[in-house]
Parts: sequence; structure tokens; C-alpha cells
Amino acid sequence: MWRAESPCSRYFCPLNLYHSNMADKLTSRATDYSKWYNELVVNADLAEHSAVRGCMVIKPYGFAIWEKMRDALDKMFKDTGHVNAYFPLFVPKSFLEKEEGHAEGFAKECAVVTHYRLKVNPDEKGKLMVDPDSKLEEELIVRPTSEAIIWNTYKGWIQSYRDLPILVNQWANVVRWEMRTRLFLRTAEFLWQEGHTAHASKLEAIEETKKMLDVYAEFAESWMAMPVIKGSKTESERFTGALDTMCIEALMQDGKALQAGTSHFLGQNFAKAFDVKFTSKEGVLDYVWATSWGVSTRLMGALVMAHSDDQGLRLPPMLAPIQVVIVPIYKGEEQLATIGEKVTPLIHELKGRGITVKFDDDDTKRSGWKFAEYELKGVPIRIAVGPRDLENNQVELARRDTKEKTAISLDGLTETVAALLLEIQSNLLQRATKYRDDHITSVDTWDEFINVLDNKTGFVLAHWDGTAETEEKIKEQAKATIRCIPLDNPLEVGKCILTGNPSKQRVLFARAY
Amino acid sequence: MWRAESPCSRYFCPLNLYHSNMADKLTSRATDYSKWYNELVVNADLAEHSAVRGCMVIKPYGFAIWEKMRDALDKMFKDTGHVNAYFPLFVPKSFLEKEEGHAEGFAKECAVVTHYRLKVNPDEKGKLMVDPDSKLEEELIVRPTSEAIIWNTYKGWIQSYRDLPILVNQWANVVRWEMRTRLFLRTAEFLWQEGHTAHASKLEAIEETKKMLDVYAEFAESWMAMPVIKGSKTESERFTGALDTMCIEALMQDGKALQAGTSHFLGQNFAKAFDVKFTSKEGVLDYVWATSWGVSTRLMGALVMAHSDDQGLRLPPMLAPIQVVIVPIYKGEEQLATIGEKVTPLIHELKGRGITVKFDDDDTKRSGWKFAEYELKGVPIRIAVGPRDLENNQVELARRDTKEKTAISLDGLTETVAALLLEIQSNLLQRATKYRDDHITSVDTWDEFINVLDNKTGFVLAHWDGTAETEEKIKEQAKATIRCIPLDNPLEVGKCILTGNPSKQRVLFARAY
Repeated sequence: MWRAESPCSRYFCPLNLYHSNMADKLTSRATDYSKWYNELVVNADLAEHSAVRGCMVIKPYGFAIWEKMRDALDKMFKDTGHVNAYFPLFVPKSFLEKEEGHAEGFAKECAVVTHYRLKVNPDEKGKLMVDPDSKLEEELIVRPTSEAIIWNTYKGWIQSYRDLPILVNQWANVVRWEMRTRLFLRTAEFLWQEGHTAHASKLEAIEETKKMLDVYAEFAESWMAMPVIKGSKTESERFTGALDTMCIEALMQDGKALQAGTSHFLGQNFAKAFDVKFTSKEGVLDYVWATSWGVSTRLMGALVMAHSDDQGLRLPPMLAPIQVVIVPIYKGEEQLATIGEKVTPLIHELKGRGITVKFDDDDTKRSGWKFAEYELKGVPIRIAVGPRDLENNQVELARRDTKEKTAISLDGLTETVAALLLEIQSNLLQRATKYRDDHITSVDTWDEFINVLDNKTGFVLAHWDGTAETEEKIKEQAKATIRCIPLDNPLEVGKCILTGNPSKQRVLFARAY
Repeated sequence: MWRAESPCSRYFCPLNLYHSNMADKLTSRATDYSKWYNELVVNADLAEHSAVRGCMVIKPYGFAIWEKMRDALDKMFKDTGHVNAYFPLFVPKSFLEKEEGHAEGFAKECAVVTHYRLKVNPDEKGKLMVDPDSKLEEELIVRPTSEAIIWNTYKGWIQSYRDLPILVNQWANVVRWEMRTRLFLRTAEFLWQEGHTAHASKLEAIEETKKMLDVYAEFAESWMAMPVIKGSKTESERFTGALDTMCIEALMQDGKALQAGTSHFLGQNFAKAFDVKFTSKEGVLDYVWATSWGVSTRLMGALVMAHSDDQGLRLPPMLAPIQVVIVPIYKGEEQLATIGEKVTPLIHELKGRGITVKFDDDDTKRSGWKFAEYELKGVPIRIAVGPRDLENNQVELARRDTKEKTAISLDGLTETVAALLLEIQSNLLQRATKYRDDHITSVDTWDEFINVLDNKTGFVLAHWDGTAETEEKIKEQAKATIRCIPLDNPLEVGKCILTGNPSKQRVLFARAY
């Protein structure tokens, strides 16, 4: 039992919630990757669509993974000097107007609160209607991001260089009214964190932008076992209001890229929009320099697509809500009791090592069903124990990543399991890195470019003439975008794949989520 | 440096944000309790009003306290078998209509989303307007609470008794359009947790309701050092849609009561409204039994008002973001360096014991300023260290709760501090309990009743005839409400203080927040 005290208690098991559609096999990735993804997210009980258009319900198993992500990130933010705070859900319409680019970027997709009261509908019994007398003088926007409301607040917090830097993060829900939604990848409401920092110098703000990009990259690789490429967006792909948008780009198993996090250098744009000035050490009045950076529940989608297979999730041990499941193989209550007795000290030992372990003694399900269920759920290690195993002082240990099964001695099993969890974590990263590296292709012609995108898929390094016009044409014709200009990109003279005009460097293209 | 690695580094100190209006003395509690509260919340950098009517900004120092509350509660929920999930921010208007009482309870105070897009205002350059073409077919309500959206979801999760119980909690923001707001105590948007459980039997649901009330009471006493009285609300004070609303009631230092948490037995009302049935073990189809329970950032207000004094906060060590502050008393850099060297191992030792410690070596502030600042912030223990102290192998230790100062040997200081933190925690609870117990008065007449409410203040135990009509009249005439019918309330024959009609028991009255 996942969280309960006694490993053998029949106390409520949160996983009850997760026993959904096990009978249905997943569509294979090869058949229909997109369908496979949707089925997996729903069948593994990560999330489901809600009755509210575009909004999802994050189910307990999915939320447990998100909690682990959040806690790991939160610690990394705090270790780099940041603190959390909380700002209002609503942004007055006039605030959005203050930063022009910002307004344009978000105005087209926002939930607008216009009234503050319902009343009983006099014409229809039992029905409610918007009370026209409760119309707001100024409409409120449900935050699509919080730069505007936060910079309006910072105005009151900053007078002097002594008040800087401000290194604040917020964990929050945001709403962007997307027309086409997909669980985790694109939803009208999502959960995220948004860091908003204020600095006395341009250099310091740029350093902060890079530092947080590094934090994201480190998190993606060390926790999600997902390698990423760090770079800068082109001007047309920048966050509205930013002077530079840096990003981490990951590659999914279908060869499509996914932007996994962004870190923006905002220059003095928001300080100017909200009139936030400070007096420097030298007594000079200047606008404050800003950054913002965020990752969201979109990372859940990335995690699913980076590792999973046709049998279900493959979770990196660092993010798995259940790292080890023990399934008893038995006939009758007596055998189950014997197994329970034998594994109880083992469970305590594993827990003592900080390993989360579940003993599934549910006698309404057969072991074959359980095996499939925990495969679907991506539990990294499964231990099966039957009476004959116990006679031989051993258990059967199965790795979710490679599907290898081995008979392992009960002696020193905790050490074996602890080491194996590390190995699985590292193996998932290695596999994903190999796949990613195998899917970065340099091309020099338009035909090669299209050929790679259509057949081999993945990232494509190609020359581009540096104009927004060409970028747009490539996007239209190839359905591929410039994911980023990688950091420390080597300069190399070449010709743009589309126009043949001179180019100074290759940039990273891909079709993307 | 609160979170940074090296205790002596000049790295960003999050407390920079908190150095606000130290020069201003707080209004005393005796002069104006309400003003004292508002000033304290703002000056101690817990929260401030935002530009959005009724919504607050929770500042980093305040949020750090809330994080500690949240983490402690979250652990208690998980230890009692609950899991977290996340449900949509929006509730379709028709969902609110399904449970009649529920609709009435929340319709009058809700934020209504009617449109999903803004557009450029053609008549006014740079301005945005609501795009009339983006009107929603059905209005969405920003959740004031989530029973409706959650029970609509549970319908898809529950078929059989095997799917029960569902023990789910959500940490979320909610919006109730309050007309008169006060920081933490009553805000249009607030943060809270809401547990929503589903059960196969009435008895189990009632037990859950009580269990979570006990969790809240335990949290209030053990973490907040705030004693509470557990009881049931009268019918007219019940949560809309509940058959029983249990609550914990605390007493603030001005003699007013504050409802600190509620746990509702919802019967089958929501299951009926959303048609959620299950097949029992015996094969019988029945509606599911429900509970819901919540506490919110209102607890922050309770924490402030339960303990603080005219100099500022008095935080219980279990919830203090900084448990110990070390202030060096020095002249010149050399002395500061000597003190820094001496306290560095001490800081490591304290941190090793899990004690959060800040060494404030900011040389732009005088020690007197720092003393007042940390008093205002409620840091439980202040250690002052000067060169003469070091010669004598001692430091000066000041308790925030009693303001006692003592010279303490450096030998074994970590043990002394650890023990003292426990003592302060316990002392705050004792003081609050004594104050509360001294302010529970039994009265038998209307005159006594009014006299106690007006002068002695606090809780009043008095006979009530059990009718909603009398309850309402008492509320009008005395401005006091029935806070609860305490658990295990002794039956006692008496006469209602207002009507003289027969009464079976005394109930707990108070003027309240």
C-alpha cells in the first residue's frame, strides 16, 4: 500500500483509482503515435478530459508524478536563491495594454471575466443567469502569464539598488484559450511555475536568464532522463515582450521536437511599461532589468513521449510514484500469508533506503493482470515472489526499461534494487540521448531537408539566411520551424536551403509539438 | 542567508524583500486591534493588497509560512491515505444549478467568464476590447469550491464498491466575490485545499468527516500552537449542500472567534445531483456518500492574531521560515570577520539539526534596526554575538515569545537552541490555551450574555431553544453567532437566553471573524 503504514494492510489503496481499462491494449506507436499517446495518458490514469472545454483533470497517479517534478524543481530554484510568492489570478484588461507586444500575444486566447454575480433566472425555474447589474467596470483576464500583474506589484517593491535583485517564483494555474487541445501538451488551463526576476544591470539579468535555462536542462536530463538542446529562439518565435527567448528542446520518439522550457531576457520592457525605476549605487535613476522563465505540466507529455513503449509508460525512477512493486504469486490465503511475512522486512528495508515500494496483495486480481497493469503504469522494477522462490531464497526481478527478468537472491536485495534503480535511470537517459543524437542531421539542400523531415525525422541542422520572411516560408512549405539557434553554435559560411542567400550558421529545424 | 550555501556569503538574501517600513511603529492592539492587524500583515511582509479588487499578493515571507503549513497538512493527508489530484478552474454554470442549495450559496459571489478573446479596439489606439464574437455558449464560473466539477468527474470513476473509497485532495485557488475584504481573512481569491471523498456507506463517510476534523484540530494545536474547539454548525450555518458541517473554532486575542477549518458530511446530495451510483458488494445499486473538507490561507490570519503582540509577529517555531537569527554586534570589518569565523561552525551544527538559521551580516543596517526587524518578523530566537561575548565563550540569546534575554555558553548551544524552540512552541500553545479557557463563560440570562460579549469577550456557553428563528434574532440583536455545538456537548436542561423556551444543551456563541 503506497502510502499506508503497514505494507500488508487492506487499507485504502490509492491505486484503486488507477485500475481502469487494462483489458484494452494500447494502439501501437507504429500504427498511430498520436492515438497511442492519448490512450496511454488516459489508460495509465495520468489525466483525462474534463467537462470544461480544453481543461483536463490531472488524476492522482499523474499528479503524483507532477508533484515529484515540482518538488525537484522547487528545490533547484531555492538552491539558486529564489523564493516563492503568490500573485492574483486576474489581470485587469488595462494592464495587458501596457506592453504592446505582450497584449497582442495573449489577447486572442484569454478567458475574460465580465461579471461577478449570477442570479435566479425568473423565466426558468431552477436556472441561473448572469446578473446584468454585476457587470465589472473593467474586465478581468484570467492570467495567461503574470508579467503584467507582477511588474505592477514590483513597482511598489523597488526604489533602490538595495531592493534588487528580486528573485521570485510562483507556482500557479494559467489559462490560454487554445482551440485544439491535447492532454498535457496543449490545454486551456495548465499548471506551471513562472519565475520573475528584477535586476540592477543588464548583465545580471542575462546571466539569470542563462542560469535558469541551465537549471531546466539539468532537471530534464537528471530527473526526466531526457536530453535537451539549449539555444535561443529566432526573433519571430520570441515570447511577446522579450529581447531574447532561450529554450530547451527535446526530441520525442516520433521524431518531433518539443519545447520543454523557456527562459526570457525581458530587457527593460516591462519596467518601462509599468514605470519601475531604481536608484543605482551611483545615485542614477534607471529602469529595472527583467527576466521570466517557466515550465509547465507540458513536461508530463514530454516525459510520456520520451520513454514509453507499446506496453505503457516507462518512468525514470527519480520521478516514479512507485519505484518497486512486489507481486505475490500464490494459491490460497496461507501461501499469501507466508509470502507477506517474508517480504515485510524487505519492504521496510527498501523504505528505509528511501525507495517507494508497493506490495500488491489485492486478491481480486490475478498476477498476470497485475503485471500488465504495472507495465502500463511504468513502475521501474517489478518483483514477483512465489513459494518456490522463497524455498530458493530468491525472487524474480523484472526491469521495466529492458523487460529483462532475473532470479535474484534475497540476500542483499535492497542493495541490488537501489543500484538497479540508478542503472534504469541512467539507461533511459542513454537510450534517449542515443536516439536524439542519431536524429540530428545536417543537410545542405532543400530536397535533403524535406527528405529527412519526411522519412528519417528528428532535428535538422541547416543554413538559413536569417530573415523572418524565409523562416515563415520554410514553415509553410516544410511544416518545420526553427527550434533554436543552439548555444555556442559554430559559425559556418553557407547558403540558405530555401533562398540560397548567404548564411553565417546552421540552425536547428524540426517539426514540433 | 536563508537558503544560500555559505552562511557568510553576500549572495542574494531573500529578506531584502522584507525590509519595508520598519521605521513605522505598529498601532497597538489596545488602540485599534483591526488596524494593528492590517499594519502587521503589511509591515511584516506577509501580504499586501493588489491592484485587483479584493485580491492579495502573498509576499515571499508570508508565502514561506504558508508553504510550511501546506507541507505539514499535505503530509497529514497522505498519512491518512489521501492522494492529490487537480480539477479544472472553471465550473460550467449548469453544474452549479444541479445542487440547489449549492447554487444559492455561491451564485451571489462568483466571477463569471463570458468571453474567450479580446481584440484591438478600432476606436481607441492601443486599447483592447472584449471581442463580442467570442461569447461563450455557456458561462463558466471561476470555482468558488469544486464539489460540482469533481462530482461530475467522479461519475466516470465510480461503478462498483471496488472503486471506493475515493480519497482525493486538491490544493488550489478559489474565488468568491466578497464585497468587504481583509488580507488573509476574507479575500476574493484565496488559496486552500479541498478534500473530496466518496464512500460506499454513510457510516464510513461520517467517520471520514470526523477524521479530517481531527486532522485539522491536530494541525492547529501542534503546528500553529492554536487550541481549537471542535463541533458541528447549526443547520443555518451549514455549508450549502451538506447534512452536517463540522468545524474547528479558535479564539483570537481580541476575544473574537475565527472558524479555522470545516469538514462536511454531504450525504448523497452531490451523488444524486450528478447521478453517481455504485453497485454494492451485495449487487445493490445505490448513490455514493460524500464528504468535503477544507482549510485556507485564512489560517495565516488566525496565526497572526492568535499570538502576535504590539512589536510584531510571534511565530511558532514549527512554522517559522527563520527559526534562529544570529546578529553580529561589531565595529569594523575585522570584528565582523572574527565573529563570522566563530559562528560558522555553529550555523552548520544548527542546520545539521534541521534548524533554519540566518546570519545577518548586512553592514548597511545597525543592530538595533535588525533587532526590531526580527521582532516584527516573529523569529522565535535571536542570538546576538559581540567580541566580548566571544571572550567569555558565550552569546546573548533572546526569546521572541517572552522577550527574555540570557547569556548562554557556546558549549552545547545547539542543544540549548533545539530545546528552547520546543519550549517556545509549547509556551505559545499554553498561553493561547489559557487565554481561550479564561474566555469561555457560561451565562444564563440575556443581560449576562450581552455583558460578557461586550466586556469580557470570548466564547459564551448559553442555552438556545434550537430554532433558526431564535438563532437569527440573537445574531441581529447581539451580533453574535452560534460558532458550534461542541462535540460531546453535555446535555443539560435549561431555558433559552432569548426566548426562555426549553433547551437541551448549551451551545457556543461568540462574535466572530
